[in-house]
Amino acid sequence: MLQILNPEWLLTMQGAIRMETGLAVLLENDKIKAIEPLETLTQQHPQATVVHLPGEVLMPGLINTHAHAAMNLFRGIGDDLPLMRWLQERIWPLEAAMVSDEFVFDGTVLACAEMLAGGVTTFNDMYFFPAAAVRAAQAMGCRIAAGITTIEFPTAYASDAADYLSKGLEARDQFKGEANVHWSLAPHAPYTVSDATFKDVLKLADQLDLPIHLHLAETAHEVEDAVSRTGVRPVERLNQLGLINERLLAVHGVHLNESELALLALRGASLAHCPTSNLKLASGFAPVAQALEKGLNVGIGTDSAASNNKIDMFHETRLASLLAKGLSGKADDLPAATALHCATLGAAKAIGLDDLIGSVSIGKQADLISIRIAKDACTQPVGNLLSHLVYVADRTDVQSVWVAGSRVVENRQLRGRSSALSQETVLNRVPLWQTRFQDALGSI
Amino acid sequence: MLQILNPEWLLTMQGAIRMETGLAVLLENDKIKAIEPLETLTQQHPQATVVHLPGEVLMPGLINTHAHAAMNLFRGIGDDLPLMRWLQERIWPLEAAMVSDEFVFDGTVLACAEMLAGGVTTFNDMYFFPAAAVRAAQAMGCRIAAGITTIEFPTAYASDAADYLSKGLEARDQFKGEANVHWSLAPHAPYTVSDATFKDVLKLADQLDLPIHLHLAETAHEVEDAVSRTGVRPVERLNQLGLINERLLAVHGVHLNESELALLALRGASLAHCPTSNLKLASGFAPVAQALEKGLNVGIGTDSAASNNKIDMFHETRLASLLAKGLSGKADDLPAATALHCATLGAAKAIGLDDLIGSVSIGKQADLISIRIAKDACTQPVGNLLSHLVYVADRTDVQSVWVAGSRVVENRQLRGRSSALSQETVLNRVPLWQTRFQDALGSI
Repeated sequence: MLQILNPEWLLTMQGAIRMETGLAVLLENDKIKAIEPLETLTQQHPQATVVHLPGEVLMPGLINTHAHAAMNLFRGIGDDLPLMRWLQERIWPLEAAMVSDEFVFDGTVLACAEMLAGGVTTFNDMYFFPAAAVRAAQAMGCRIAAGITTIEFPTAYASDAADYLSKGLEARDQFKGEANVHWSLAPHAPYTVSDATFKDVLKLADQLDLPIHLHLAETAHEVEDAVSRTGVRPVERLNQLGLINERLLAVHGVHLNESELALLALRGASLAHCPTSNLKLASGFAPVAQALEKGLNVGIGTDSAASNNKIDMFHETRLASLLAKGLSGKADDLPAATALHCATLGAAKAIGLDDLIGSVSIGKQADLISIRIAKDACTQPVGNLLSHLVYVADRTDVQSVWVAGSRVVENRQLRGRSSALSQETVLNRVPLWQTRFQDALGSI
Repeated sequence: MLQILNPEWLLTMQGAIRMETGLAVLLENDKIKAIEPLETLTQQHPQATVVHLPGEVLMPGLINTHAHAAMNLFRGIGDDLPLMRWLQERIWPLEAAMVSDEFVFDGTVLACAEMLAGGVTTFNDMYFFPAAAVRAAQAMGCRIAAGITTIEFPTAYASDAADYLSKGLEARDQFKGEANVHWSLAPHAPYTVSDATFKDVLKLADQLDLPIHLHLAETAHEVEDAVSRTGVRPVERLNQLGLINERLLAVHGVHLNESELALLALRGASLAHCPTSNLKLASGFAPVAQALEKGLNVGIGTDSAASNNKIDMFHETRLASLLAKGLSGKADDLPAATALHCATLGAAKAIGLDDLIGSVSIGKQADLISIRIAKDACTQPVGNLLSHLVYVADRTDVQSVWVAGSRVVENRQLRGRSSALSQETVLNRVPLWQTRFQDALGSI
């Protein structure tokens, strides 16, 4: 199947980051086949369907570098609480009582609906019951990098670290060869995973050629506690274990120091920056401008709806750019082009998929979004189209979304099965879960 | 004319901040007349029109404590530039070449369209040609607190500080007795206004009983420079001049220290917090949680579209709450209820209009907004309705807006004359201004 997308502006995010005009994109099935003027493509491929996108920018789909998608069901469950009360009185008891295959499926459907409508075509997930998350992403038409999660304590999902790994590997086998499903090893964090488990994870990552996705240096307490328990900071421990390498995606990194940033950069690791979550849970401000200056690759992520409370990559990208300037005192830090890189190609590299997604490039997957440069008073005038995408546009400006060449969002609405499934979930499943949460919290 | 608004939830922002159900609001012309159960009101006033608002929260309109509305025409004109290049290469030359009655009218129309659609019913403005801003606000149906601006250097508007004041007073006289038009004295900032002018401003403020609206301690450079030029920090100079009192609305206050915050609180002054602008121009983080802790009244503002680039009070309110937590390390700092207070009643107090607007209270002006608590996957579930308004809702959820009892926005759209004027401005006037800007910047 051949499709030609003909936008008013094209932003490939490949090479120099700039808006181009007069170019259309040919898709063959799930892939980008050519980028040429419309006339060239229509002459060469008269049988192709042409989709005109006047007044719209076509660009790569946004990539959410760090999600716990199923937690969309926990949106607003513990706002304005200190971190330990948030965990001890809300998140942990609810997770203990609720988490199941059914919970993860329903929550991930909600998150996929929110993400797709907001221009996110891929999310890098870390949660329990990853097979349920994959089924939900498939049903919704969203690309997923699912985490083979592991942690030392038991849950309804698995009994110990080895059991988590074996169940995650089983899930990976179950979806082997299926399109738009990718994997990482996801040991939760240095403070919840033992040295022995990290060694198993490292071995598996090498065997299966997978990234390693973990929380790192999220809070000052985490770092201090690690020093008092192990004598070294978490990065040093991971380094001794051989984990600081190009497979590593360190999430948060709020309390990484200069030399740790330099080490991560030197070894080709990546950072997942989740600015809203870091503020809302009062963890602090990740040193993203310094990370970028040292050459560390950065992707942007939303974290979960329990600590955000919206899974909105436009919001995160804008906030990343604003915070960097406020922190450094330099208004030209993390400019729009860099912020867009962190939300697309940088994010793809962070999850080990930059040969497949993250830019509009020939041979890559056709994961694309179109953004309407609106003509109304809320967005006009447009002083600069590139910075407009970061500082003015929001997720309601996303008009169309394609994942692997398939149009999942059209005219701002989810299509077909995705739409029906998300509506059914909101109408019937969400009220059911809310009743269950109240019962569970009432019995604590 | 009698109207009854019957929402699903009512948030008065008066007394304890909580959602109420089972209450409707009776409007008589421009005022709030009663708050009672629907049946009580319909029995007492069978002739009243009833507007049902199922699934919506009714609350006071948001108040934008600091705007330069006309600068909406400059949206995106100088993104990602260091502050001095932003001013010297973009803002100042463009203002010198462009600012006129016509510019201010068109720009303020755009800003009013954006603000009203986003739930802002009042804005506290500071710019040149205030009469043009008032005419635009009136044409759009938005309440304005216009600034009698003064600054020591000449512009196309006025020749010196006295000329600014006299032109501002003339504008005030011109609109005397007209509804929904309010005023402040607006000396630009300590670094652009002389002691003599501040004394004139103080005298006028006392005579006319007006607030004093000025930029204060926006950048570290401003404070350092003041110390080296005058020997004292800006607050100390204002204090010596007698300006630190309940009339004062200090905008930004990023570099106010503890004792200055305490002094402002003690004297009953207010702070206008503009978090996005402070980040985008790399000024830093205003100490808002400390200010509130000391009892200083805080309103939230957007600043101009040249340094934001959206005039979106939902965005600012959420950001204010998030930044406070990130700065203090306390996730319960600036909780949702406090953030909503700063965007409504606190803002009203900051501009000296808390006896008139800022809460749903009997006798106050009927400046109201209704927000749809959407049933879609982008916002469901709703864990807590109050925090949902701050952390999840955005301006596209605003369904209806009333200013002084008149419905300006219905079903998310501007009505009648406001709609026609904003469309005409976007279609015909914006392109004209963009051509002029290019010519002006080309000739620098």
